[in-house]
Amino acid sequence: MSGLHYDELNIHCPLPSMQKGLLTQSQIWQYAKASGDSNPIHIDDSAAKNAGLDGTIAHGMLVMGLLGEMISTWAGIQNIKTYRVRFKGVAKPGDILTSRGEIVKKYVSGNDKIIECKVLVENQRKEIIVDGSAAIRCQD
Amino acid sequence: MSGLHYDELNIHCPLPSMQKGLLTQSQIWQYAKASGDSNPIHIDDSAAKNAGLDGTIAHGMLVMGLLGEMISTWAGIQNIKTYRVRFKGVAKPGDILTSRGEIVKKYVSGNDKIIECKVLVENQRKEIIVDGSAAIRCQD
Repeated sequence: MSGLHYDELNIHCPLPSMQKGLLTQSQIWQYAKASGDSNPIHIDDSAAKNAGLDGTIAHGMLVMGLLGEMISTWAGIQNIKTYRVRFKGVAKPGDILTSRGEIVKKYVSGNDKIIECKVLVENQRKEIIVDGSAAIRCQD
Repeated sequence: MSGLHYDELNIHCPLPSMQKGLLTQSQIWQYAKASGDSNPIHIDDSAAKNAGLDGTIAHGMLVMGLLGEMISTWAGIQNIKTYRVRFKGVAKPGDILTSRGEIVKKYVSGNDKIIECKVLVENQRKEIIVDGSAAIRCQD
């Protein structure tokens, strides 16, 4: 059970945001090794340029994971009832990514007290990379 | 646009599944570095045991990313309209994780032709670690 109390959380409350330092090519290489996804557009600048990009881009799943990390750090992963995302943009080495969110809905479903949050990851230019929502199970 | 053609895809069609080799502690360490999430339950066996676990566990977001990778490899990440997951279990070093899915619904929404897929990651004992759904934009 999370330490989140349903009655203490209100619509429009922000979630604790999470800013990561500069996204580096090394992190993207690490993610490629961790995931086994070594698509050259993530790994190799000239291959990315041949594919019509400005240079390498981060794996979408890496960015989605950062957003999920913000939610699970706050609520505990076992309390995430659903987590839903849409991919809106790309993250590149040198970007500074911030995950943030706010509570948009509260409801009771069976025995569960649920808060629903809008969440997003944006870069230093306030461009949205991933947005989505999460439903979190709370205590009384 | 994906190379997926709406009219060629039918309900109950399986997605191309993706099996990763043995999940290793090294991969989990790599993910910790890539994500910046160095919670000791992922990193350090004795810390995980002190927390009441059998040993280290993989980040939930690492497993979610593997599932997303299967979907994006198949459909192209730009065609994932939504991707939704629930966390059901944990993955540990030594597990063999398989991502799979099937088409469960087809519908037209505005100009978009959408197929909806049920997806999951299971281990070598057929225990579900993550399940969820994805809505994919298709060509005619």
